[in-house]
Amino acid sequence: MIVCPYINDDKASAVTSKEHRTVTRAAHQEPNVLRLKRLGIDTYQELVIFMSTASPICRSEGWAAQSRVQVSHNGRSIVTTLNVTTSALLGPDEASLSEAAWRVLGAAEGDLVRLTHALPVESLSQVRAKVYGEKLTAAGIASIVRDIVAGRYSDIDLAAFVTAFGGTKTDLDETIALTTAMIETGERLYWGRAPIVDKHCVGGLPGNRTSMIVVPIVAACGLTIPKTSSRAITSPAGTADAMETVAPVDLDLTQMRHVVEREGACIVWGGRVRLAPADDVIISVERSLDFDSTTQLVASVLSKKAAAGSTHVVIDIPVGPTAKVRSTVAAGLLESMFEAVGAKIGLSIRVVRTDGTQPVGRGIGPALEARDVLRVLRQSPDAPEDLRARALMLAGSVLEVGGAAPAGAGLARAQATLESGDALRKFEAVCGAQGGMREPAIAPLTHVVRATRPGQVIGIDNRRLARLAKLAGAPRAASAGLELHARLGTKVHGDEPLMTIYAEAQGELDYAREYLAANPQVMDLEDS
Amino acid sequence: MIVCPYINDDKASAVTSKEHRTVTRAAHQEPNVLRLKRLGIDTYQELVIFMSTASPICRSEGWAAQSRVQVSHNGRSIVTTLNVTTSALLGPDEASLSEAAWRVLGAAEGDLVRLTHALPVESLSQVRAKVYGEKLTAAGIASIVRDIVAGRYSDIDLAAFVTAFGGTKTDLDETIALTTAMIETGERLYWGRAPIVDKHCVGGLPGNRTSMIVVPIVAACGLTIPKTSSRAITSPAGTADAMETVAPVDLDLTQMRHVVEREGACIVWGGRVRLAPADDVIISVERSLDFDSTTQLVASVLSKKAAAGSTHVVIDIPVGPTAKVRSTVAAGLLESMFEAVGAKIGLSIRVVRTDGTQPVGRGIGPALEARDVLRVLRQSPDAPEDLRARALMLAGSVLEVGGAAPAGAGLARAQATLESGDALRKFEAVCGAQGGMREPAIAPLTHVVRATRPGQVIGIDNRRLARLAKLAGAPRAASAGLELHARLGTKVHGDEPLMTIYAEAQGELDYAREYLAANPQVMDLEDS
Repeated sequence: MIVCPYINDDKASAVTSKEHRTVTRAAHQEPNVLRLKRLGIDTYQELVIFMSTASPICRSEGWAAQSRVQVSHNGRSIVTTLNVTTSALLGPDEASLSEAAWRVLGAAEGDLVRLTHALPVESLSQVRAKVYGEKLTAAGIASIVRDIVAGRYSDIDLAAFVTAFGGTKTDLDETIALTTAMIETGERLYWGRAPIVDKHCVGGLPGNRTSMIVVPIVAACGLTIPKTSSRAITSPAGTADAMETVAPVDLDLTQMRHVVEREGACIVWGGRVRLAPADDVIISVERSLDFDSTTQLVASVLSKKAAAGSTHVVIDIPVGPTAKVRSTVAAGLLESMFEAVGAKIGLSIRVVRTDGTQPVGRGIGPALEARDVLRVLRQSPDAPEDLRARALMLAGSVLEVGGAAPAGAGLARAQATLESGDALRKFEAVCGAQGGMREPAIAPLTHVVRATRPGQVIGIDNRRLARLAKLAGAPRAASAGLELHARLGTKVHGDEPLMTIYAEAQGELDYAREYLAANPQVMDLEDS
Repeated sequence: MIVCPYINDDKASAVTSKEHRTVTRAAHQEPNVLRLKRLGIDTYQELVIFMSTASPICRSEGWAAQSRVQVSHNGRSIVTTLNVTTSALLGPDEASLSEAAWRVLGAAEGDLVRLTHALPVESLSQVRAKVYGEKLTAAGIASIVRDIVAGRYSDIDLAAFVTAFGGTKTDLDETIALTTAMIETGERLYWGRAPIVDKHCVGGLPGNRTSMIVVPIVAACGLTIPKTSSRAITSPAGTADAMETVAPVDLDLTQMRHVVEREGACIVWGGRVRLAPADDVIISVERSLDFDSTTQLVASVLSKKAAAGSTHVVIDIPVGPTAKVRSTVAAGLLESMFEAVGAKIGLSIRVVRTDGTQPVGRGIGPALEARDVLRVLRQSPDAPEDLRARALMLAGSVLEVGGAAPAGAGLARAQATLESGDALRKFEAVCGAQGGMREPAIAPLTHVVRATRPGQVIGIDNRRLARLAKLAGAPRAASAGLELHARLGTKVHGDEPLMTIYAEAQGELDYAREYLAANPQVMDLEDS
């Protein structure tokens, strides 16, 4: 039998166990409690606590920069990374949090928090096992995803996870397990009917705002399509940004459900509804590392769709030299993975490969892209034909997989729905249900970029084009961006306009023009 | 031929290229320059820049939290991760840096820095290739290590590197390439003579301060041993901490060279001399992930030794259930990797396996460990026999590999050198050359922990013992820590002392006692 072998030696302070506890508590009175002060430091998603090197807690606990510290408040606990301050920013009895940590902990300035050593994160042993080449069980993968959603992984831990699961080291079973775990660690919507359809485009092309056209066409044909979309992260506009220029998108789950029950459709911001929240955490580290993992891509897309209650999903894979998927071989591998995982989690998947060589439509930037969408829905003579054709083709596919059109007849039904005005009316109704439709704003400042001589457009640099639109203010300035007047193959005969830059502030217009002057290869003209 | 196809449209502002540049420069006057303000935030090694969300640079460049930003000052550039501040901490024309970034950039409060987008880090493509299972070339690995030393890897990038190279995915060639690259990216010492010997212990046991005994014995026998050692990171004391209680250790390369040229030996802090600096960066992320990679361990140890100019190295591998190496199989694999890599980079290696089941000596904490060392060197009757025997055995091995004793005669020569007092005199001389010898301080506060009943010590928890010593103040409080009066197998008959806690402050002594009361398993007593 093993029992506590200690007694106190110094007779003067010899106390019973109970007395001892009282003495020490009196000596340090709530020893690990600090008062929160707001410093307003945004570290993106990482949960960071800031404490003074002069804090007695740092000293007694042996904590230093990068230590993992558990912070508890009102029954909630988060695990944070410690940054220490050596200046007068924080007193010895104060602590501060990164913006993400304030949010997750639900604490306010002046609140008291209790600090303890963070327990080891058990699921990291699963990550280590993967590093050693082991195949993980579904339970092991689920434990990782639960810890990620609970905020127990530091950015360093997340990078190790993404790397260990990257490349070709995960198989179909593990991808299925990851997808399932990502669904189960968030909210999940049930609609009490079927089919529930959706569409998703893998890897963005500038201006590719087909969702805002596909959704109303499909819903006008009687299918249910609860679309969640993202805001721009590195691009000049996400679907949520473009949609927001015509209607509110920041709806919670209850509001979203109301809209879909009334109109059979919605186009809302996915960040608010927190379906498959693990994905939001993982994706930011993936982006930082610029890793393209098929496992992670498939799990990311399909977990969001399944959590939204979808049963039938059309996946658009643009293929092109500067697109995310660059060859038909890569597209084929991705397609078969989507279909296999979809089948296992009860999603019927149809993959459509599309042209990924240049931007879609004419506008780049939230309001300019929404304007293109409205022109297509309103059948304006100046509607961009490529956006219209692409959206009709995708809508036709969704109609077919959702059973609203026989195989081969989807496109015709989509076209008829657009031309009858039903799609426009449905779009207006969805906007109304989301809070009211408005016209996208038009930027006050413009600058037309013209050709200097005759020639033919032989190259468009999507990456530089996106940067130009961002310098002009997109997506923060919703009406800023670009309107393209030329596409690949366009022949110019003199000083015809190639594009117009839109901005809300003179400084931003100047920045964009300066960048363009230094980067003429944004659009390459060959002498004719 | 492709030429710039743009002209300005709005005739009023139509300017020539030169005029245009003048206009825009006037508008934004040094648009990407901010003034540095010190906030005193320590993020350990990560290079971070802090900027206000209100900064026009953030807005125009599209930067947000986690963006990678290049910061230039006085011809030096570093790549930083952006944290944005939403409070009044920083004005729109101000920026701040993490403590590591101030150091690496060599900037001071009030200096102006220029900010630009960080160029993509080319060598990350090598890390991605490794993720996909490719074998890397020596040139590819060298490019990674150069970028790490230049501070171009974020903590996320470093975690990906450590993970991609972890497990069993690197082979001998890659380990050799990594070791070589780590040597070549730092200072390297040449001594103009041979042999240059060294010793290293893999994975710490509390109290295992053999280096402070081995070095003077070996040097007293005429060999050259330029020992660099580390400070504690997670343990209660590193060799540099213990040595610092008897002599200065914070020497630069020139000072270190003087000491070695005069005395044939030194025991200095390796952090100052920056041999194989990549290792210092990589190891902190490894520690955070708790990854045990053979490749990284071998590269870490051997690169430091080779950079210090060593030719013959004895590696001590403690094997035990709570040690870093837990089985003889694991020890064998590590041993063969050390020997193979050593042979390739011109180092002669001898591996010695030692008992790793319990602490060595009696003291745990900088001054208490130094006291053990001095007792051995001074041949006090109360010198800890296990530390003495271990140090003599290791010194004997070093003497044999360095050619100062025939095979099998090293131990006897080491013993004679200790018993003659030559080792003590050499230690005193080395301390004098490093800046002067002093006696280690004795902590003012003590608490003796006694057994409550008869029994036998059947278990010592090294991890909890280390934590107890740290709560008492070690290594910051140099005289704080523990002195053990019992070892595995010790039989106690009544209320005999098991250990003494030393502290410099009453609060710390109380913390340690409180922890001990809650964690009786630090030392397990079985009833006899």
